[in-house]
Amino acid sequence: MARLTTPEEISKLLDYETFLFDCDGVLWQGDVLIPGAKEALALLRQHKKRIIFVTNNATKSRKAYKKKFDVLGIEAYEEEVFGSAYATAVYCSTVLNFKKEDRVYIIGMSGIEEELDAEGISHTGGSDPADLQAGPYTLDQFTDDPSIKAVIVGLDQYLNYTKISKALQYLVRNEGCHFIATNSDSTYPAADGILPGAGSMYAPLQYILKRSPVSIGKPNKTMLDCIVAKCVQHFDRKKSIMIGDRLDTDVKFGIDGGIDTCLVMTGIAKEADITGPNASPIKPTYVMASVECLAQLVGTS
Amino acid sequence: MARLTTPEEISKLLDYETFLFDCDGVLWQGDVLIPGAKEALALLRQHKKRIIFVTNNATKSRKAYKKKFDVLGIEAYEEEVFGSAYATAVYCSTVLNFKKEDRVYIIGMSGIEEELDAEGISHTGGSDPADLQAGPYTLDQFTDDPSIKAVIVGLDQYLNYTKISKALQYLVRNEGCHFIATNSDSTYPAADGILPGAGSMYAPLQYILKRSPVSIGKPNKTMLDCIVAKCVQHFDRKKSIMIGDRLDTDVKFGIDGGIDTCLVMTGIAKEADITGPNASPIKPTYVMASVECLAQLVGTS
Repeated sequence: MARLTTPEEISKLLDYETFLFDCDGVLWQGDVLIPGAKEALALLRQHKKRIIFVTNNATKSRKAYKKKFDVLGIEAYEEEVFGSAYATAVYCSTVLNFKKEDRVYIIGMSGIEEELDAEGISHTGGSDPADLQAGPYTLDQFTDDPSIKAVIVGLDQYLNYTKISKALQYLVRNEGCHFIATNSDSTYPAADGILPGAGSMYAPLQYILKRSPVSIGKPNKTMLDCIVAKCVQHFDRKKSIMIGDRLDTDVKFGIDGGIDTCLVMTGIAKEADITGPNASPIKPTYVMASVECLAQLVGTS
Repeated sequence: MARLTTPEEISKLLDYETFLFDCDGVLWQGDVLIPGAKEALALLRQHKKRIIFVTNNATKSRKAYKKKFDVLGIEAYEEEVFGSAYATAVYCSTVLNFKKEDRVYIIGMSGIEEELDAEGISHTGGSDPADLQAGPYTLDQFTDDPSIKAVIVGLDQYLNYTKISKALQYLVRNEGCHFIATNSDSTYPAADGILPGAGSMYAPLQYILKRSPVSIGKPNKTMLDCIVAKCVQHFDRKKSIMIGDRLDTDVKFGIDGGIDTCLVMTGIAKEADITGPNASPIKPTYVMASVECLAQLVGTS
């Protein structure tokens, strides 16, 4: 674990070809841009580096995520964005080889729906008004549907008893029905506190079925497999680096995927997580205060 | 584990003074009475036995549960019914010693609310229309309330993201806030399948907090403590028997509470659960086909 402090140390990063960026806590905090983020990315583009944005946020599609970059004034392209909703849709189409007649039941929001649409996979649940009924849910409202081959669970701010009950029926009644999570983050950071995340959406089903879902987002390697598969140019892991603010997702994702990592201190990880008696066993290749450090290199050769 | 088959064997049960009955799968299945249930209870009353109904169903108060007996034509008295909602309310008032100004946040239904009212404990959440909003829930909708001393979770057919989010805030922000479950059944049996039960309602909070609730219902001893505390006459555990259809709740409840148990085969437990290679390690004192066996004793001395 090397600290990158001086411009000489920081400039080592420019030896990499591909930069994978987590977004929240790295480029922005909530809706506020982190100082220097824009300049850091501009510098990398100027040096012809490949930039990839890797986010576990499955509530937004790549298209919707791109709009967030636009609003914040950051140059970004839809094909550079890899969200867990997109990776989940790609997993269904390429790993599970879902056919035209196969359908998916969604606990989740429009991000998953849009990405499944883009991959040509039919779905039900999600934002369907029929599943937004407050309750109670009884089984005479349920119709068996053997075409449902998977239940996909992501963060759903409209989670309710109806959706959990329907997902349970498919998982119990449809033999071989896949149980997939966009990611397993138990919470997500809101402006002034924490709210339940994707992991807590599938917790009831996991508790009932005594079975964990296949989780797609960071730190799981499916996300990197998806990125590698979709990259037009060759993806050289030895020349790639993951820049993130969380040890248990971003840094673990890099380590498990065989790529170097750089922790920034502008998000979740605190100094005590990397040094001292309670430090995490997950160690990044580098630690840097902020992406702002990269911006300092502007103007140097 | 003794099989009770002949009238001589079955009549041994009349040596007990107190009969604790689980209801669903023992006296009825859904809304259908099990043959002989009425006669069996009448026989016990004729022999001056004490009868206690012990149910994990927390959606109904004792008063509402009594109505179910009335509809099915079974003689029963409100003070004989011990539901997990009632036991939870008694736990708050007698074990936690909640004061007048202490309040409780509920994920659950009217059974819990009515029982808390009866114990004089203030509550919020539950059936409050404000918490029935479909979503999304954001923290600017949350107001800190240090008077909330516990979150109680039971089966809630109106469970939603709002309720989970609010419960999470109280558990995280209010120091020492108790985390209580009426029971931990992951599902409950509906007429033609299973639906999520109380245990899966608290699974998201358990997943986030890495902390399990104190669970009150069977098989936990709090339920028996509550029964013993509320019984006017002395409760002699050696002269008591629990009759139920589930090994992991009813029979375990009896064993852990130091009372004998009798498994009936009219509900969840199947022959393979008690004999053969996959039998449960939880062994009842007796096994009997149905409460109907007791009814056979009518007319014998």
